[in-house]
Amino acid sequence: MNDFQQEWIAVDWGTTHFRVWRMSGVDVIEAREASCGLLALQQDQFESTLVKHLHGWADQAPVLMSGMVGSRQGWQEAPYLFLPVSLREVAIGAVEVQALELNRKVHILPGVACQDQTRPDVMRGEETQLLGLGAGVEGWTGVICLPGTHSKWVWVENGAVNSFDTYLTGELYSILSQHSILRHDLGAEEFNSEHPAFANGVEVGLSESTPLLTSLFRVRARSLLIERNPLANAAFLSGRLLGEEVRSAIKNLPKTEKTHLVGGSSLTKLYAKALTLAEREVQRHSGDDLVQLGLTAAWQFLYPQSE
Amino acid sequence: MNDFQQEWIAVDWGTTHFRVWRMSGVDVIEAREASCGLLALQQDQFESTLVKHLHGWADQAPVLMSGMVGSRQGWQEAPYLFLPVSLREVAIGAVEVQALELNRKVHILPGVACQDQTRPDVMRGEETQLLGLGAGVEGWTGVICLPGTHSKWVWVENGAVNSFDTYLTGELYSILSQHSILRHDLGAEEFNSEHPAFANGVEVGLSESTPLLTSLFRVRARSLLIERNPLANAAFLSGRLLGEEVRSAIKNLPKTEKTHLVGGSSLTKLYAKALTLAEREVQRHSGDDLVQLGLTAAWQFLYPQSE
Repeated sequence: MNDFQQEWIAVDWGTTHFRVWRMSGVDVIEAREASCGLLALQQDQFESTLVKHLHGWADQAPVLMSGMVGSRQGWQEAPYLFLPVSLREVAIGAVEVQALELNRKVHILPGVACQDQTRPDVMRGEETQLLGLGAGVEGWTGVICLPGTHSKWVWVENGAVNSFDTYLTGELYSILSQHSILRHDLGAEEFNSEHPAFANGVEVGLSESTPLLTSLFRVRARSLLIERNPLANAAFLSGRLLGEEVRSAIKNLPKTEKTHLVGGSSLTKLYAKALTLAEREVQRHSGDDLVQLGLTAAWQFLYPQSE
Repeated sequence: MNDFQQEWIAVDWGTTHFRVWRMSGVDVIEAREASCGLLALQQDQFESTLVKHLHGWADQAPVLMSGMVGSRQGWQEAPYLFLPVSLREVAIGAVEVQALELNRKVHILPGVACQDQTRPDVMRGEETQLLGLGAGVEGWTGVICLPGTHSKWVWVENGAVNSFDTYLTGELYSILSQHSILRHDLGAEEFNSEHPAFANGVEVGLSESTPLLTSLFRVRARSLLIERNPLANAAFLSGRLLGEEVRSAIKNLPKTEKTHLVGGSSLTKLYAKALTLAEREVQRHSGDDLVQLGLTAAWQFLYPQSE
């Protein structure tokens, strides 16, 4: 049994980001971040990278990590748990890592997968945010959308992930704007959720009036024939893709079901706008905060404090 | 009035290809091709390139060209004609080009566009294949699918293009396989239309059981969890995209309506398979042949022979 105010280290280690928190029980003492995500590292550089970023912190504090660091390309694989998975199972499913230099306990939380032949899917990192969202609520139930490069829609029932779907929306926007014929027509500036072309794109996506593959080419055709500025084209395309995702995701959802949006501020604002146009209620949550809360919830499962 | 057996030159000049035929009336005397498409040329190199490839052929023979050579990035813009456009209008809409070196008449056929605010679209080159398909048939009516980087579905009624839609299918497959997270999961080998994973992809696309944006990510998830070889992944993805296109395109089409497929052999075979799985009748046509036939039909409109 550990003291409730024990020091420990929480780590969120993804494809492109690395964040670490020095914790005392449930309280954050100090936070650090760096750009040493998986893409920037060789497979034998994980431990030395972590050692570097823990410099000056308590020597013996155990470490709990989450994210792509537990993938096959990460430090050590923390195999997927298969649906249905309770959030508690994610926590106690943490895998101990061989860490020779660090001289302390190091764990990585597992990802979650659906192995159904007809709908295989995987998540790694998002399960920790779900842990944070459901922390302290017995039998938590809800629909959660986690926008991102590969956005996830998750159905949690009674504290367990029952099903989820991943949409390639963010990555598709990115490769269309960098590598397709549309790249000349799209502005690189940021647009916000109140841009009228964004709403227009969402409405086309929600309405099924134009097939997605046709809408994509029409961004080009519109530039040639009618003109629309590059920023508006970008806003339209983003809205068109989000509208497509939202239409599919809410199809079998009761109209009254609220969607929890988890992520960064600008992206959750866009999704909130799209869901509002679809006449759905939303509640936004900071993705960063939820990772840290999720790691804390998992730590409480793993190291239950003395009463 | 010209003699029916007058010599003339037909040119199909696209983004990546260049083909030229030495014609005597409706008969091909000789054909040449090269890889000097628009992407390989500066804007001031068109005439000298053509001069080079006409070497040794009749000095005065007029030239009729079609394709991206008439775009804003081409030799000279041949502005779009707007829907509805009869195939005869395409022919007589040919634009004369300033050709100082060539010392003969040079024309470029216009493209066709839909300027409707809600469904802007453009074609350039395909209208010539349509001319070839409808050549000699009074009041030709039919549905034509022209697969390619940007595939087109065209409704021709009574010899006029009434409407058309472009699908980004081919380009999407290409950028997904080169630039997305799926690139590691897809084989670069050719698969054929009888690959079972292709049929499986088409069926998912036709059925609407899984949203497109979700299907895309599941190619990755399947590789991680269940395994499927890279060739099968590529066949599935191709089928999934074609199934999506076909489902959208035939939605409002009577079940008995035959689809004319115009293009290269391997691509029209894939589309024929997808349409057959959707229980539609198809007729395949060689795209190369139809360009030459279309240029010939246009030449007959432009230079009507003495009776």
